[in-house]
Amino acid sequence: MSAKKKDYNKLALALHKKLKGKIAIAPKGPLKTRDDWSTMYSPGVGAVSTHLAKHPKDAREYTWKRNTVAVVSDGSAILGLGNLGAVPALPVMEGKCAIFKAMADVDAVPIVLDTQEPEAIIAAVKAIAPTFGGINLEDIAAPKCFEIEERLKAELSIPVMHDDQHGTAIVVTAGLINAAKVVGKKFEKLRVVVIGAGAAGRAVTLLLRQAGIAEIIVTDSQGAIYTGRPGLSGYKKDLALITNANHLSGDVMQVIEGADVVVGVSGPGTIASAHIARMAPHAIVFALANPIPEIMPEDAKRAGAAIVATGRSDYANQVNNSLAFPGIFRGALDRGVRAITDEMKLAAAKKIASLVKKPTAEMIIPPVMTPGLVKAVASVIK
Amino acid sequence: MSAKKKDYNKLALALHKKLKGKIAIAPKGPLKTRDDWSTMYSPGVGAVSTHLAKHPKDAREYTWKRNTVAVVSDGSAILGLGNLGAVPALPVMEGKCAIFKAMADVDAVPIVLDTQEPEAIIAAVKAIAPTFGGINLEDIAAPKCFEIEERLKAELSIPVMHDDQHGTAIVVTAGLINAAKVVGKKFEKLRVVVIGAGAAGRAVTLLLRQAGIAEIIVTDSQGAIYTGRPGLSGYKKDLALITNANHLSGDVMQVIEGADVVVGVSGPGTIASAHIARMAPHAIVFALANPIPEIMPEDAKRAGAAIVATGRSDYANQVNNSLAFPGIFRGALDRGVRAITDEMKLAAAKKIASLVKKPTAEMIIPPVMTPGLVKAVASVIK
Repeated sequence: MSAKKKDYNKLALALHKKLKGKIAIAPKGPLKTRDDWSTMYSPGVGAVSTHLAKHPKDAREYTWKRNTVAVVSDGSAILGLGNLGAVPALPVMEGKCAIFKAMADVDAVPIVLDTQEPEAIIAAVKAIAPTFGGINLEDIAAPKCFEIEERLKAELSIPVMHDDQHGTAIVVTAGLINAAKVVGKKFEKLRVVVIGAGAAGRAVTLLLRQAGIAEIIVTDSQGAIYTGRPGLSGYKKDLALITNANHLSGDVMQVIEGADVVVGVSGPGTIASAHIARMAPHAIVFALANPIPEIMPEDAKRAGAAIVATGRSDYANQVNNSLAFPGIFRGALDRGVRAITDEMKLAAAKKIASLVKKPTAEMIIPPVMTPGLVKAVASVIK
Repeated sequence: MSAKKKDYNKLALALHKKLKGKIAIAPKGPLKTRDDWSTMYSPGVGAVSTHLAKHPKDAREYTWKRNTVAVVSDGSAILGLGNLGAVPALPVMEGKCAIFKAMADVDAVPIVLDTQEPEAIIAAVKAIAPTFGGINLEDIAAPKCFEIEERLKAELSIPVMHDDQHGTAIVVTAGLINAAKVVGKKFEKLRVVVIGAGAAGRAVTLLLRQAGIAEIIVTDSQGAIYTGRPGLSGYKKDLALITNANHLSGDVMQVIEGADVVVGVSGPGTIASAHIARMAPHAIVFALANPIPEIMPEDAKRAGAAIVATGRSDYANQVNNSLAFPGIFRGALDRGVRAITDEMKLAAAKKIASLVKKPTAEMIIPPVMTPGLVKAVASVIK
């Protein structure tokens, strides 16, 4: 496959201008006769309000709450584009909402925020929360995304998930389960280097640990993260506690020696051929920066990688969050789940992996169009 | 017409349970092929975000913002039911959103708030405002609704309207324009008593003054409001300045003597036959409490009223906000209007009145199904 077959930028600008918004509101009930109006709206709707005042949980039965997710962003980390703010985040959130509906019949509403201050974001999401059955946080920068998600999970009674963290972690874990099979290595014994200690890097690390992988080293712009590294603070200090047991220091070139897996969640060009050459045989390379990966698949293969995954739809093995989030929220909404736990994320990863019946180097991750995908993922959210 | 032909409460509960939400999200673009995904979403959508970062006003062209309104409530004054809170407000807001779409093709999103504190409401609405092209405030109690609306109008660059105030005021003014014609009185010379000094009472009074009516007396639970009334404060003090020029005191029975019009925006049963008997000949009675009016139309007629209007769909002359808000926001969105001014409200009232070609006692207000209604109202919002 060639790296650039179509100019999606141009196509996207044209499509967006034509559509003027990628989602719309559709009434589900009739508003033709006077009786329709009196039943859909006043005076009849008053009886529904009165009922819900007495039985608030019945909102699941009488309103859209039970099928609705807010896709919330402050625009501080839009795709790989950085901090562009609220309005530029809107088309991304609309796209996500269109995917929610098309894949999982979830009614998702984009909400872009005119604040980037964590307390104000938390307050705004809490304020609007009674409207929705779940909150999908999106494109919020690290490290504030960690506190925002944790606080909202603790303070709301509906499921909250920051998809940039957990969607990515789930699909990476799914891919790695199958990649291990293809190269004939035991999953738990894989030695993994994660390049990038942002939202996705942290979540991938936590879920791979949860999945049983013991040896993980995370690197940031200062090199390997280890307990005691000068200046290390906050969540990176916590990451050091559960990774890099041998306290290795140094840059990627040093710590990648003998690794089975490298997961790039950083930026274009941060994985070189020489890195891959130093890895163990049958190297597994996840180069997830989008749209330009840490290393192009052709180059990774030439350097000796056995399996390559990227975030791109025009290469094999696309790590696409859409494999996870629609089914996860479908399941959570259907079962009234109050929180997406680590166990559910791991179960979702295993379920996604299981949808590839015979994994090969070119097929460790199922395509997003896989029949039954959403239902399968939803089935483990319980 | 009989007062209670159908049990709309029962019908509404059944319909709501069946629909499980009165609105849904509908994707406007395709998500079938890999190219669809790359254009509707990543990577192509990144070009739209980048464009909007440079040209934020183009959100009107590239996102749903230009056709979208948030219908926001804190549930503190739901219909005539009182303060039931956020979740019980949700079916009402959903109904309003269904009406927005069905009548005016506006994509409206219900937002119910988990706070009833004015500053927190203002902060939440400001936070989510970049998502929307307009804000319809709904079912928020007086007096806080005044400050909330004024602050949001001042601090946001999109139109904000509290419909309980202005929707009602516009339709009452429209009805009164035609009622004056039917009884052969000059509109500006009408002597009006407004019973109820809440959100709707204040707004009706302000718009009727704006429309040129000089003599208005507003009453609350303490009787007529007049400058100097002991304990009078806040917005009622301001109302006193522009009403009741003769500083009449006393209860409704006293100040209604010789009035041409009574507008009830209070509660069931607050207009008695004896009140109407004291009014000038050809009395015009707007009894707008819902679902049980200040006086039932049959009783008002028997007491001598020439024209009766209510908020009910099962009587003639329904004062229905849906005559106004869909067209007002349709016009505001289409023309990028930043604020709904008093002039626009008055123009909307005149336009609605003009849709009744030959007003009669039974037809001073056009039905909500009037062909061309939304387009006509929208045309004066500029």
